[in-house]
Amino acid sequence: MDKKDDNSVMIGGKPFMNYVTSVMVQFNNGANEVIIKARGKFISKAVDVVEVAKRKFLTEQKVKITKIVTDSEEFEREGEKKVCVSTIEITLKKE
Amino acid sequence: MDKKDDNSVMIGGKPFMNYVTSVMVQFNNGANEVIIKARGKFISKAVDVVEVAKRKFLTEQKVKITKIVTDSEEFEREGEKKVCVSTIEITLKKE
Repeated sequence: MDKKDDNSVMIGGKPFMNYVTSVMVQFNNGANEVIIKARGKFISKAVDVVEVAKRKFLTEQKVKITKIVTDSEEFEREGEKKVCVSTIEITLKKE
Repeated sequence: MDKKDDNSVMIGGKPFMNYVTSVMVQFNNGANEVIIKARGKFISKAVDVVEVAKRKFLTEQKVKITKIVTDSEEFEREGEKKVCVSTIEITLKKE
């Protein structure tokens, strides 16, 4: 999952509405598709961002979820055991 | 989302592995499909449960995700404002 992908929004620790705004901006800049990505504990927040964006702000533009993919990634911290973390990618698309 | 649905597992505050075990038990009891459901902050945990069940325990049985649906529910607490909470339902199916 690369933060620099075009049309993708990576969910992290910033205030919730920042991410909703990012999604809106991408669509307003002409994107047909925006992918919301998150890892671990931010997965719940990603779903919230998608639901709020869809219901409150994108009703006129008719945006809907076209794909949801979950996966898990392994990574190692120095000298520690491997850690497994779940990921999600939710694709929103203009109809 | 009804906790008493057949073949569904509602994710809450119990230890993580309880839910993984519940999923396993349902498949071992002959279910072809198990639906993992969660609301709000438990959504991340639901994805973890699905990923761990799929990768560590259900490899021989070839179980895969066939559907993921997100939604949001409104509910009212007495005398308070309406609260909106996101939900997820992940369907695991034997191939």
